[in-house]
Amino acid sequence: MLVMIAGRGALPGLLSRRAAPGLVAALEGFPPDGVMADVTFRVERLGSLLADLVAAGATEAVFAGAIRRPELDPALIDEATRPLVPRIMAALGQGDDAALRTVIAFFEEAGIAVRAVDEFLPELLPPAGSLTRRAPGAADLADIERGMAVLDRLGPADVGQSCIVRAGQVLAIEGAFGTDWMLESFDRRPDGRGGLLVKAPKPGQDRRIDLPTIGPDTVSRAAAAGLDGIAVAAGGVLLLDRDDAIRRADDAGLFLEVR
Amino acid sequence: MLVMIAGRGALPGLLSRRAAPGLVAALEGFPPDGVMADVTFRVERLGSLLADLVAAGATEAVFAGAIRRPELDPALIDEATRPLVPRIMAALGQGDDAALRTVIAFFEEAGIAVRAVDEFLPELLPPAGSLTRRAPGAADLADIERGMAVLDRLGPADVGQSCIVRAGQVLAIEGAFGTDWMLESFDRRPDGRGGLLVKAPKPGQDRRIDLPTIGPDTVSRAAAAGLDGIAVAAGGVLLLDRDDAIRRADDAGLFLEVR
Repeated sequence: MLVMIAGRGALPGLLSRRAAPGLVAALEGFPPDGVMADVTFRVERLGSLLADLVAAGATEAVFAGAIRRPELDPALIDEATRPLVPRIMAALGQGDDAALRTVIAFFEEAGIAVRAVDEFLPELLPPAGSLTRRAPGAADLADIERGMAVLDRLGPADVGQSCIVRAGQVLAIEGAFGTDWMLESFDRRPDGRGGLLVKAPKPGQDRRIDLPTIGPDTVSRAAAAGLDGIAVAAGGVLLLDRDDAIRRADDAGLFLEVR
Repeated sequence: MLVMIAGRGALPGLLSRRAAPGLVAALEGFPPDGVMADVTFRVERLGSLLADLVAAGATEAVFAGAIRRPELDPALIDEATRPLVPRIMAALGQGDDAALRTVIAFFEEAGIAVRAVDEFLPELLPPAGSLTRRAPGAADLADIERGMAVLDRLGPADVGQSCIVRAGQVLAIEGAFGTDWMLESFDRRPDGRGGLLVKAPKPGQDRRIDLPTIGPDTVSRAAAAGLDGIAVAAGGVLLLDRDDAIRRADDAGLFLEVR
């Protein structure tokens, strides 16, 4: 039986229709979008959740949608979770990637194989090339390269899946608040407009968790931020609602490039 | 004769009183604070500026204060600057550090030695230790370490002299808009408050240009951003108006730590 650990955004609904999970679990306080949770859980009771899932016949799990890092309440840690606490605490002190890797390890150690979203929805990974009427120019291509190089360097520090580059300058690097927040902060950019959003998975990132995602809203936010285009790493960034995203980019005169 | 290339902020005024430069030059459109410019120049006429400075007897130069990267107008490039253009263009396509390194090289090739601000104002580099009543706790020290490690990784990509870390998570990384802008963007942080500002020079940064700087306004902005403290790298970050900065940190309950 497949369990979906569901979060925010369009992915849980899409995955639910495609993969028909036998059970949907969601983090307490983070109700999933587009699907009802059968079970809600807290990280403090992760050990019990895993035991319950195994008892219910779970053999596979898929993580779909964004989950914000929860605050832990030590008083709520139950008996089954206590042995996991040292690893949970160590993971939470690190970047998102390390934290999610630890969660995956717990599932796999319980005998539940964790699968990647794009195994079920391969069409969400767009092919390399230009998707829009506008294509990046020579200066844009240099900025894409610069952005990818910066993300590549940041990877081992386990931060940032995107950045904004303009004329060789890195204007912004994504922090824990995510791509949307970074783009929204640009309504007060001091330099007018221009630049492009570059998004890629971290080098060596486990594809089964938190693969970077863009969609029509990303395009609208990038346009509102005064950007000229968006470039994503081929095979590493999920594109939701591709037709709508391309239409919005074309309407706003942005390029959408997969490299 | 010492030439001061003056920009914004408190440094030009401080340096002017301490080092008594024989000539003050400023970038056109960026009038310096606290001092009058004898000469304004454009990057397109850098070759002529250097020739003029040498003719005026300049033997040393110091860069004091922030300068924003100018837009170049190819039509304004003069005869003396034309030979420098390929290197100027290459430098502007890179990070700030590379760009400023190139400018330093032009001065030195013209026979003008470039000196560091802290050679004239050594008291601006605070000694290691806690400067405030509040000192960082164990969790803060772990976050300082995490922040310094992230800045260290970013260095070779020539971006970011500061970041904001909270409970092991990197909330923000400074881009081209600078520390103040990053802190101001936190009036819309989605997570309430907490975290600390970590600031350090880039590893291997030339100390003669753009040494990171904090001052009383940084403290006030950090407090307004909901942060708990500020940590700077010992010997690598200039602290302006130390007494006022410490007083503001104490008033707001922030720590100011030099490590």
